[in-house]
Amino acid sequence: MPGSWKEIAAKKRAALLDSIPEEWRIPANILPPESQLDVTAFPQKSGWFTAEELEITNSSATVLLKRLRSGKYSSEQVTKAFCKRASAAHQLTNCLSETLFDLALRTARTLDEHLATTGQPIGPLHGLPISIKDNFQVRGTDATLGFSSLVGKPSPFNSTLVDLLLAAGAIVYVKTNVPTAMMIAETVNNVFGRTLNPRNRKLTSGGSSGGESALIAFGGSCLGVGSDIGGSLRIPAACTGLWTLRPSAGRFPTAKTRSGLAGQEAVMSVNGPLAPDLATIATYSQKVVELSPWLDDPKCLPIPWRKVDVSKKLKIGVLWDDDVVLPTPPIRRALQLAVDKLRRAGHDIVEWKSEGMHERAARLIARMFVSDGGKSVRALLAPTREPFRPEMRSYEDAAELGVYNMWQIHLERNDLQSKYLDRWNAAGLDAILCPTAPYAAVEHDKFRYVGYTCVYNCLDYSAVSFPTGLRVDKQVDGFSAEDQTRETRNEFDQKTKDEYNVEAIDGQPINLQLVARRLEEEKVLAMAEKVSDALKA
Amino acid sequence: MPGSWKEIAAKKRAALLDSIPEEWRIPANILPPESQLDVTAFPQKSGWFTAEELEITNSSATVLLKRLRSGKYSSEQVTKAFCKRASAAHQLTNCLSETLFDLALRTARTLDEHLATTGQPIGPLHGLPISIKDNFQVRGTDATLGFSSLVGKPSPFNSTLVDLLLAAGAIVYVKTNVPTAMMIAETVNNVFGRTLNPRNRKLTSGGSSGGESALIAFGGSCLGVGSDIGGSLRIPAACTGLWTLRPSAGRFPTAKTRSGLAGQEAVMSVNGPLAPDLATIATYSQKVVELSPWLDDPKCLPIPWRKVDVSKKLKIGVLWDDDVVLPTPPIRRALQLAVDKLRRAGHDIVEWKSEGMHERAARLIARMFVSDGGKSVRALLAPTREPFRPEMRSYEDAAELGVYNMWQIHLERNDLQSKYLDRWNAAGLDAILCPTAPYAAVEHDKFRYVGYTCVYNCLDYSAVSFPTGLRVDKQVDGFSAEDQTRETRNEFDQKTKDEYNVEAIDGQPINLQLVARRLEEEKVLAMAEKVSDALKA
Repeated sequence: MPGSWKEIAAKKRAALLDSIPEEWRIPANILPPESQLDVTAFPQKSGWFTAEELEITNSSATVLLKRLRSGKYSSEQVTKAFCKRASAAHQLTNCLSETLFDLALRTARTLDEHLATTGQPIGPLHGLPISIKDNFQVRGTDATLGFSSLVGKPSPFNSTLVDLLLAAGAIVYVKTNVPTAMMIAETVNNVFGRTLNPRNRKLTSGGSSGGESALIAFGGSCLGVGSDIGGSLRIPAACTGLWTLRPSAGRFPTAKTRSGLAGQEAVMSVNGPLAPDLATIATYSQKVVELSPWLDDPKCLPIPWRKVDVSKKLKIGVLWDDDVVLPTPPIRRALQLAVDKLRRAGHDIVEWKSEGMHERAARLIARMFVSDGGKSVRALLAPTREPFRPEMRSYEDAAELGVYNMWQIHLERNDLQSKYLDRWNAAGLDAILCPTAPYAAVEHDKFRYVGYTCVYNCLDYSAVSFPTGLRVDKQVDGFSAEDQTRETRNEFDQKTKDEYNVEAIDGQPINLQLVARRLEEEKVLAMAEKVSDALKA
Repeated sequence: MPGSWKEIAAKKRAALLDSIPEEWRIPANILPPESQLDVTAFPQKSGWFTAEELEITNSSATVLLKRLRSGKYSSEQVTKAFCKRASAAHQLTNCLSETLFDLALRTARTLDEHLATTGQPIGPLHGLPISIKDNFQVRGTDATLGFSSLVGKPSPFNSTLVDLLLAAGAIVYVKTNVPTAMMIAETVNNVFGRTLNPRNRKLTSGGSSGGESALIAFGGSCLGVGSDIGGSLRIPAACTGLWTLRPSAGRFPTAKTRSGLAGQEAVMSVNGPLAPDLATIATYSQKVVELSPWLDDPKCLPIPWRKVDVSKKLKIGVLWDDDVVLPTPPIRRALQLAVDKLRRAGHDIVEWKSEGMHERAARLIARMFVSDGGKSVRALLAPTREPFRPEMRSYEDAAELGVYNMWQIHLERNDLQSKYLDRWNAAGLDAILCPTAPYAAVEHDKFRYVGYTCVYNCLDYSAVSFPTGLRVDKQVDGFSAEDQTRETRNEFDQKTKDEYNVEAIDGQPINLQLVARRLEEEKVLAMAEKVSDALKA
């Protein structure tokens, strides 16, 4: 008979903290107080990190890969530095779910020996520490997805992606926290509790890849892998000012990863990289595809990494508003600036309306997620009598559908995919520029609406969430008189309006989303670079 | 209030016959008697076809494309010849469901004018008549799938593939018969009745693309498009000695086609070409992919037609027996000859065992098809109170699954896909050579087992069914003493043994199946050519 879920959770949390060696525990005398909201300056200012540790962990993955390959840095040195900074990140934001420090350092030393002996790197990711979301399986390590029933049930095998990354020379050193079943847009569960945003600990780092986003935003990882079924890469990236790519299904391997809704396929979960910079995202994406993952993952597509030419004028549809939830002022400001600068750069910017399709997509996805009547989640809660979290009320209350009704949902989705594509073709678009969310950032428990991201899961389009370089500014981003008096459209819109708190999010980065057709990962990255460059110009 | 289903069906059949103009009705004095089993010599020997009509309709699509392009033949001339021969095919085998003769001839004349005026063909399929299975929609024409409730409900739009073929210059002139809902391995339904095999009218032409196979085997089409969800292209090809390619899902467009199990996606229906020769199959496949169908069909993959090199020695696993149903003697003989000749040609042939996986796949697929409790089929039967056909007992009797159980089926399928791929990788295979069915051909109502094909639907591998050049020979293909006394394994195996009638199928062509990885259409075609060449050597 297992202990109560609370006991299991408390022990697991303690074991996680215990797994951080003494040398990487922040001394009490320099530990930022809980009241300190922004902890991102801690590494630089605490004096607790060596200059070398800072130089390494402040470098991008692409720079690190060069220096690892040349031998300027050893993998052990790089891995140690990230283990330490990730440990600090966890102590300040609760962003990890597992540490694999010993394995990581052993592997790093093996790689260093290999390079020293042979003069050759082991593979294209030689020596680079990569953080991974909790749903990726690493042999001998838990993958709990925040469920107490999965604590102490170590994975018997590696996820296919993990095997490929390791074979390419990467080091897996931490796994990162997720919301229960990965089905909440923030990162909170009954086992590990809540992950905080290192830029402002009163704010969420987003979800479900919010352990990753907190870790990376703190500098505890230069490259992490998360997953996305309704926005779970793009929302955390937006909440913390990172880059991410949501690929279409089949581009990156998903085999042998764990899911809270195992077997659900009406909308496919995909995974992708999170990083502070585009170059890292592009490098990771290319390298993973060049590992020919379709040879090992039955769901992966044999599409090589392709060269794309985006030198010509782009035709970009701009979605100001999905007609469900009006974006808050900072998002509107960023969109307007992007449009102005893109026009100035010579691109063809046209209006793109939701025409009700975004609302349809959001409703469809919501039905898909709970179409099993919440049975999958319930089955994971039951063994330890763990309660449903309040955020997962829709799973608790759902009635199971029969397969016939599910087939009708597939048909509705197919119809939507077909009509959206027809509109895209008629407009001759290269991309859609739109919000990632109605918010730049939100306080905990206030991420209400995922419609701006989940529509592209429903359509399976490739999409980037990227930092615009702009930040929320309470001097300019307050509600206008018109905002204050406007009639809201629905409960989501009402809450978004009611809960908008520009003081709370002042200074936070503002992301936008750029969307391309299905399986146009190369093109959407290349276009995102152009958009980003235009914004800087 | 609609009439009874029998009335509707009788009227529809009469209207179909009436749609054949007088000039293309076989004169009573030369009509082969019902007792004549093989009617394939009729066009050549009846004297009813002109030399030109025979020259045209005896040509392959690749030859016709050249002559259409050069102007040697007009499209009108070619289309007329095929309309006539298809009309004869229908009168002798009941292979059509719709005729589109007027539209076809009008289109042909327009194409001829275009070529005459501009000197340019309209597209890569300029002027070529292509027959299509009933599930493809053509604006203004029924697509009944054999359901009386769908009679007189003309399609409001074209299927995406039809639009693409027309834009490429093809002529759509007939639609071909299918079994009810396309879910029987023979071709029989309550509206149009049964399609006969022109090589022996006591035998089935297979299903569900059995209208196509009968038509093409008779010479009434040089290229047809069918579909395959459990063997529906490969089985008809095998029953009539044709070539076909079952592509993996996403290679050819399926958008806006009609299905008897609409919204079912646990195993995807795909479509592909049927023809008497490999070159036609390869040309069609390349041309369709070169039309970039992914721009119009949300489920199509942006994978261009790729060059493949199969000049090296191939490693081919041979599956003699799936351990569920022992193939009948002609199939075993063809496999043995192929193996001998391939070895002689220098290829590496290894044994490939089912290891229970083929049985698992067949069971899984059977569960998927009826997971809606037969509701989709029932909903199509109900409006006219049409009864379930006896072949569809499993749909009539099925209990609907809930979505949670469906998700568990997805997981079982994913596990099977993963394990099969692991085995493939471990063996280092290029291809698997195996039966298309346990039979070379069967009498009506005796096609019992689709396990040799449906396993590759479950896995979504690319597969070719091809004629070996061998024919059933009652002198050598009788049961051995060992065959006669062997213990059978199950009901399928028992029936296959009990019903084996070498006299009935004497002289019928013997097909085999060649299988490659998922989305290796180019490679499987190139390898099939090598296998076919080896067999001829």
